[in-house]
Amino acid sequence: MSTVGQLSFSPRLLLGPGPCDVHPRILSVMAMPVLGHLDPEFLTILNETQELLRGAFQTSNRLTFPISGTGMAGMETCMVNLLERGDRAVVCVAGFFGERMAEVASRTGAEVTRLEQPWGQVFDPQRIREALQKVRPKLLAIVQAETSTGAWQPLEELGALCREFDALLVVDAVTALGCIPLAIDEWKIDAIYSCTQKGLSCPPGLAPVSFGPRAAEAMGKRKTKVQSWYLDLSILQRYWGEDRLYHHTTPITMMYALREGLRLLHEEGLRPRWDRHLRNHKALAAGLVALGLSYTAAEGHRLPQLNVVRIPDGVDDGVVRKRLLDEFNIEIGSGLGSFKGKAWRIGLMGYNSRPAVVLQFLAALEQCLQAQGVKGAPGRGVAAANDFYSSQK
Amino acid sequence: MSTVGQLSFSPRLLLGPGPCDVHPRILSVMAMPVLGHLDPEFLTILNETQELLRGAFQTSNRLTFPISGTGMAGMETCMVNLLERGDRAVVCVAGFFGERMAEVASRTGAEVTRLEQPWGQVFDPQRIREALQKVRPKLLAIVQAETSTGAWQPLEELGALCREFDALLVVDAVTALGCIPLAIDEWKIDAIYSCTQKGLSCPPGLAPVSFGPRAAEAMGKRKTKVQSWYLDLSILQRYWGEDRLYHHTTPITMMYALREGLRLLHEEGLRPRWDRHLRNHKALAAGLVALGLSYTAAEGHRLPQLNVVRIPDGVDDGVVRKRLLDEFNIEIGSGLGSFKGKAWRIGLMGYNSRPAVVLQFLAALEQCLQAQGVKGAPGRGVAAANDFYSSQK
Repeated sequence: MSTVGQLSFSPRLLLGPGPCDVHPRILSVMAMPVLGHLDPEFLTILNETQELLRGAFQTSNRLTFPISGTGMAGMETCMVNLLERGDRAVVCVAGFFGERMAEVASRTGAEVTRLEQPWGQVFDPQRIREALQKVRPKLLAIVQAETSTGAWQPLEELGALCREFDALLVVDAVTALGCIPLAIDEWKIDAIYSCTQKGLSCPPGLAPVSFGPRAAEAMGKRKTKVQSWYLDLSILQRYWGEDRLYHHTTPITMMYALREGLRLLHEEGLRPRWDRHLRNHKALAAGLVALGLSYTAAEGHRLPQLNVVRIPDGVDDGVVRKRLLDEFNIEIGSGLGSFKGKAWRIGLMGYNSRPAVVLQFLAALEQCLQAQGVKGAPGRGVAAANDFYSSQK
Repeated sequence: MSTVGQLSFSPRLLLGPGPCDVHPRILSVMAMPVLGHLDPEFLTILNETQELLRGAFQTSNRLTFPISGTGMAGMETCMVNLLERGDRAVVCVAGFFGERMAEVASRTGAEVTRLEQPWGQVFDPQRIREALQKVRPKLLAIVQAETSTGAWQPLEELGALCREFDALLVVDAVTALGCIPLAIDEWKIDAIYSCTQKGLSCPPGLAPVSFGPRAAEAMGKRKTKVQSWYLDLSILQRYWGEDRLYHHTTPITMMYALREGLRLLHEEGLRPRWDRHLRNHKALAAGLVALGLSYTAAEGHRLPQLNVVRIPDGVDDGVVRKRLLDEFNIEIGSGLGSFKGKAWRIGLMGYNSRPAVVLQFLAALEQCLQAQGVKGAPGRGVAAANDFYSSQK
């Protein structure tokens, strides 16, 4: 045991699908002392965090708070509270996290119908309409920002569609929140979950969720107890409501972090935040294309915060990622599932969506590609990004 | 949203049942940058943390790691992985957390038999033997340190007893780890869970668990999938094993904290740590008795780290706790469940188990009791504690 020394590690730049670099202001609140989970001053912090979170989600939903686990705990919270044995669900699958939703939903005993699209594509509302018509499910689940493919699923029409068929709309916003437009109330989303370690630039550890009145009504009509006690909203909401009933000990420090991450979001403003992600994405995309890379998602459906590109023929996935990490201290994401070995996932999320990061990454990637025999004019990646930024002045 | 200002709060001394004050060395690692959850340097941190945790639990169990949630997620992990519909479980209930175990176990669809004792008492092995003989359960669940009553349940004989009846022994060590003796292998405990925010002096957010070979065998024979995907050990162990398969994004910062908390434990040594808790408990107890308070648990079964005492007749629970908090910035715990309004829970855990804390608390409590009309020689609490410390020199 004596061999385990003081904590020490290399200073990384985290450009994968998350976690991303934590904003310095958030790091500083992480070192603040812990308060009790029923301390009146901490309860104020909870109220403030909820208020900020409702603003970030653009909702007035009372049931808006973070679950004490990571994004995947948020996914499970939605499924186990809204589904029970015998219910029907339609899950849209066009990537790894759509698959996950189907798996997690099926563990409730619900009958899950998978609506599939090839990885990297998005769903057309007409196909969803047909599925709703045929299956008549209790809920439809879909991923807004598919972290495995970088595809951006439009949601605007789906809320109204689901209401037409009396289905709940459940959205995975893990990679969306704090990066791209999201409006729970306007879009009529009934349940949603996200995480802290992507667009909000916090460490991982909490899963913000929100449930609307239709979801609350459905939960009120359950015939059986929620199979997870830890994620049971019928009890959890009594801690987050006026009762302040003890359920479990909230991860206090992570709440400080989430509050600060949300403060940063609101100081910047939602629209300026989204615009910033789009601008730096375009600069990165110009550079990546100049380096000969192509996106897996179609133009118009590419997530600005997560750039998923094909690994060029003849280029060794592992060698490039290892060199980026060892020589440049830059982490990017490998391909997941059917994209394994075929794609890289390059994240520019929250704090990391900055011109300096874009330029630094393109310069480093060019060196790694060159070592793999990829040819082209020196500096072309950085030049293309710079040209884009200049054109925006 | 603009009304939510910079994070700021009163400097508390946390002498409730947890969270407790975080050790300064742990606070300092909380502000370190986040690493990726598959970064080779982070994987080393995971390995080190597991090694330290095995030492703390006194086990060689391969399946020893923290769950990404709080202590209650640890409880649920044990129940949902070891039980499935139709299984039988015996749960020992002599407090709030025994009740919880029964509730969480029952949500698996298992048939739960509650073995009850009055709150504050412990279980005699003979009674447990009778229950095992009668019910022939798949598992027996028991709380080592009952956080609601401050009672210390001896475990030494229970492992052998459970093996005699081919039952698994599941232990709640949430308030035990890092405070009182605990030896998984020697005591033949099959599954155990704890937390980070008590004896380990970390913030809340992780639940260390450990599963022995008999538990692993039982999990291998399951007929159904684990009802919680988030807590499914059959998948989780592939991230914690050599595969390093992505399951969810580990709460990175909390892992730094746990590693540091365990380093502090091993630097001090397990036995010296337990002795320190006992010594400061005895000083506190001398002071509390001098102030006219009495323990709810019997002598010989009182937890050194959590002192649960009856609120004297005529003393207002809420007024005293509010004054301790407002005037002295000291938090203690209120009574839970059937002890609500009748008991206080005073924690001296990990970093907070120190003579300076004992004396400061006794001095403050005396003032609050005096304001409630409790009479006695001024300074008697502090004097009794000082006498005890002097007698130990």
